[in-house]
Amino acid sequence: MEQRLSLVTLGVSDLDRSRRFYEALGWRDTPRAEGVVFFQSGGMVVGLWSREELAADSGVEDNGGWGGITLAHNVRSPADVDAVIEEARAAGATIVREPAPTFWGGYSGVFADPDGHPWEIAHNPGWALGDDGSVILRA
Amino acid sequence: MEQRLSLVTLGVSDLDRSRRFYEALGWRDTPRAEGVVFFQSGGMVVGLWSREELAADSGVEDNGGWGGITLAHNVRSPADVDAVIEEARAAGATIVREPAPTFWGGYSGVFADPDGHPWEIAHNPGWALGDDGSVILRA
Repeated sequence: MEQRLSLVTLGVSDLDRSRRFYEALGWRDTPRAEGVVFFQSGGMVVGLWSREELAADSGVEDNGGWGGITLAHNVRSPADVDAVIEEARAAGATIVREPAPTFWGGYSGVFADPDGHPWEIAHNPGWALGDDGSVILRA
Repeated sequence: MEQRLSLVTLGVSDLDRSRRFYEALGWRDTPRAEGVVFFQSGGMVVGLWSREELAADSGVEDNGGWGGITLAHNVRSPADVDAVIEEARAAGATIVREPAPTFWGGYSGVFADPDGHPWEIAHNPGWALGDDGSVILRA
């Protein structure tokens, strides 16, 4: 199996509400099919789909709540962390951790999207960020 | 907020077991810090970390089980879907959906990793796959 994540699908309870939330953050989808939203993210895709249909399609039982996966968006400075967290707050996100220095030597905050999916907005001084926003780890 | 997912962190109960599972699928990590595993995936990163610590760090309550997020790895043909699902089965994954044609005109199967995180292995004839495995949606 190639070392490549192609698509992360977030199960949502109200597709239009979630689409509007991500649009308020400046995201634009690539229209593809009814009932699903796809956002290009570098060489992969972030999708939004009915959580109920996603659970059935994934062969899993859904007890609700968080399931052990957290997303992150890395930015170039602590000030950029603050700015994105304020943007998310203005878009109606719940800020579950206000921006602050982290134990690993960076700076981050966490917001939850309308379905509670957590996004850490992070500045990691040890990670290189390309001009296009890509993260490249160097051994 | 740039339209960019930088990092997906999977909460795991046994870091060594999970690392061995992904290594059995051919993945190689970029050593970075104790207690965490990072796999480069194109211009983003897939991480493994203690689920308990990830929950606390993400400001969420963990009731266990699935939380509305499914990962996918796209391949070039139905035969490649079959091959990756067999590779995952051999690595000890549970196959939660055997490979078969899908309602959206493709072909896919789903395995669960040692912590139950579902991965759909998919061939989508409507998506372009670059030589490096990147997915590019065309409007």
